[in-house]
Amino acid sequence: MATTNKAPLDSSTPITWQAILEAHERIRPRIHRTPVLTSGTFDRMSGARLYFKCENLQKTGSFKIRGASNAILGLSEGESARGVVTPSSGNHAAAVSCAAAWRGIPAFIVMPRNAPAVKCRAVESYGGKITYCEPTITSRNETCARVQAETGATLVHPYDDDRIVAGQATAAKELLEEVPDLDAILTPVSGGGLLSGTSLASRQMRPEIRIYGCEPERADDAYRSLHAGEIQKLESSDTVADGLRANLSPRTFAILRSYLTDILLVSEAELLAAQKLFAERMKIVVEASSSLVLSPLLREGGLEKLRLAPRADGQPPKIGMILSGGNVEL
Amino acid sequence: MATTNKAPLDSSTPITWQAILEAHERIRPRIHRTPVLTSGTFDRMSGARLYFKCENLQKTGSFKIRGASNAILGLSEGESARGVVTPSSGNHAAAVSCAAAWRGIPAFIVMPRNAPAVKCRAVESYGGKITYCEPTITSRNETCARVQAETGATLVHPYDDDRIVAGQATAAKELLEEVPDLDAILTPVSGGGLLSGTSLASRQMRPEIRIYGCEPERADDAYRSLHAGEIQKLESSDTVADGLRANLSPRTFAILRSYLTDILLVSEAELLAAQKLFAERMKIVVEASSSLVLSPLLREGGLEKLRLAPRADGQPPKIGMILSGGNVEL
Repeated sequence: MATTNKAPLDSSTPITWQAILEAHERIRPRIHRTPVLTSGTFDRMSGARLYFKCENLQKTGSFKIRGASNAILGLSEGESARGVVTPSSGNHAAAVSCAAAWRGIPAFIVMPRNAPAVKCRAVESYGGKITYCEPTITSRNETCARVQAETGATLVHPYDDDRIVAGQATAAKELLEEVPDLDAILTPVSGGGLLSGTSLASRQMRPEIRIYGCEPERADDAYRSLHAGEIQKLESSDTVADGLRANLSPRTFAILRSYLTDILLVSEAELLAAQKLFAERMKIVVEASSSLVLSPLLREGGLEKLRLAPRADGQPPKIGMILSGGNVEL
Repeated sequence: MATTNKAPLDSSTPITWQAILEAHERIRPRIHRTPVLTSGTFDRMSGARLYFKCENLQKTGSFKIRGASNAILGLSEGESARGVVTPSSGNHAAAVSCAAAWRGIPAFIVMPRNAPAVKCRAVESYGGKITYCEPTITSRNETCARVQAETGATLVHPYDDDRIVAGQATAAKELLEEVPDLDAILTPVSGGGLLSGTSLASRQMRPEIRIYGCEPERADDAYRSLHAGEIQKLESSDTVADGLRANLSPRTFAILRSYLTDILLVSEAELLAAQKLFAERMKIVVEASSSLVLSPLLREGGLEKLRLAPRADGQPPKIGMILSGGNVEL
C-alpha cells in the first residue's frame, strides 16, 4: 500500500474536522493535556528527532478516555438516562467507567471470565458494573446484547463509532499543535480507533505527513487487511501486546485505506525491548501495546525503511509517536 | 524547629535571587523544562491538590544536571581547561559527566569500588572517566584530592557549592512559575543542595509557603541536625534510598536553618509503597530516594500534621513535590 491521498479533510470525510474540534472542546476540561517528551538518547539511537505524546500519563492510564468521554459527555439526556454498556476488558472499559461516573450514569462492562484481576479492579475503582461472559466473541456479543436489552443502556463501542474516533483524534491534534512540522507520526493499531483519529487529524493539520500504524507480527490483521484490500480477521493471538488483538471495522478500515501511509510489523522481542528502554531511559511506564511504536526506529536502516530522509536543511526528520497507554501489571 | 523567616531573599542571602535567575538563563537551553503532573487518584488519597515536578524525566534522569551544568557551563576558560572532578557514585556523577561533555572538557569521577554497575555505565555513557577508591569516606576524599592534584581539574562538589545550589533552585522556580499559589513544597533531603535551592527559590517567589524536606528514618541526620542546632553526621545507613545518605554541609545547614519549615521522616515501607504507587498509578519511574515525598501525605491525618488546612475558599491546599530522580535498576 502507501496512499497518495494528501488532501485535508473536507465535508465528504465521514468524520469532519469540525467534529474533531467539537470533541476537543467537549473533553478538554476533563482530560489531561499530556506532555510531549523528548529524549536525547532515543534521538541518538534512531537518528531522528522523536516526540512522544504521553497518553500513558492520561487519566485512566490511556488515550481511551478521549473517545469514551467524547461519546458519553455528548449523549443526549434521553440516550444517557439508562447508562452505557461496552464489551471490553481493557483500557476502554476503564475509560467508559470513568466517563460515565463523570456524567453520573451507570456503566455496564461486559468482560470475559478470564480477564486479568487488575483490569477488573480498574473498572470497579471507577464504579463500572461488570457482567462476566465466556471468553469467546460469541458469548461476549450475546452477553452485551442481553445487558443492553435488560438495562436499556446505550452501546459505546471501543472503536466502531464516529464519536470515539473523533475523540481519539485529539491526541494527535495536541501533538501537532506543539510540534507542527512533523515528518511522520506513528501509533499502535488494533481496532483502528486511535489510528483512524490520528490519520484524520494529521492529514488535516499537516497534509504531507507520513502516517504509520504499528502492529505486532503476531496480530498482523490490520497489515493483512490493508494490503489485501479487505478486512482480514485475527482468529487468535498470543502477542503480549494484549491491547492490540482487535480487528478493524468497516468504518476504521475505510478511513485507514484513505489516509494511512503504511503499517509496520514488530516482533515480540522488539516490543519488549522497547518497553524496557522506556522505563530505563525515559523513566516512564509504557504498556507493550504502546511501546512497539519505537521499535521500527531502532532497527538498522529504520529511517530509510520509512522513507524518511534528512530535511532540506540537513536536520534529522521529526517523528511523532503516540504512547497510547501505561497500564501494566507490575 | 519550624522557622519564622518568611522574608524574600535579599542581598544578605549567600545565594542571591539574581544568581538563581542567571543560573536559569545559563542552563535553560540545555535542560528539559520537565512537566508538572497531577493525579486525581493521589489528590483523593491525600485530600490535597498535588503538583509533581518530574525531574525524574530530566536529562540524565535527575535534577542533578541543573546544578552540575550551572557550575560547569559557568566556569571560566582557565578553570575549565583541565576538566572537572567530583566524588560521587550517584546521579551527580552522571550529571557532571554529561555537562562536561557539553562543555567539551574531561570529567574525572571518583567512585567506590563497590558502586553499582548501572551507575558506572551511566557515567561512562556520558564520557566520564572513573577512578575507583575504597568504599570509605577517607579513601574517597584522598583519591579525589590525588586526582585533582594529578589532573589540575576543578572540583565540582555535589552540594557544598553556591553554583550547585543556585542550579538546583531552578526546579522549584519552574514549578512555582506554573503553580504560583502553592501552600507547601516538599523535596527529598540528603546533602541539602536541592532542598537549599528549593527553599531559596520558594521563599522568594512565595514568601508564605511552607517548605519541607523529606528524609528516610534510617538516614535522619538532617532531621537531627536541624533539631539539635548543629550538624549531626550519619555514621552509616542501610536505607534503600541510596541517594539520601549524604550529610549536610555548613553551607546547606545555614540555608535550611533560615528558610526551612521542617523535616519529615519516612519509613522504608512507606517510601517503597510510594515508589510502587508512582509506577502503578502515575505510570512514571521514580527512584526510592524521590518517592518518599509522597509518603507524608498518604498517612492518616497527613495534612493536619503539615498544618495544612483547607483554604479560605474551601478548596483543598495545593502542595508541590519535586520528584528528584528516576534512576532505578530494573
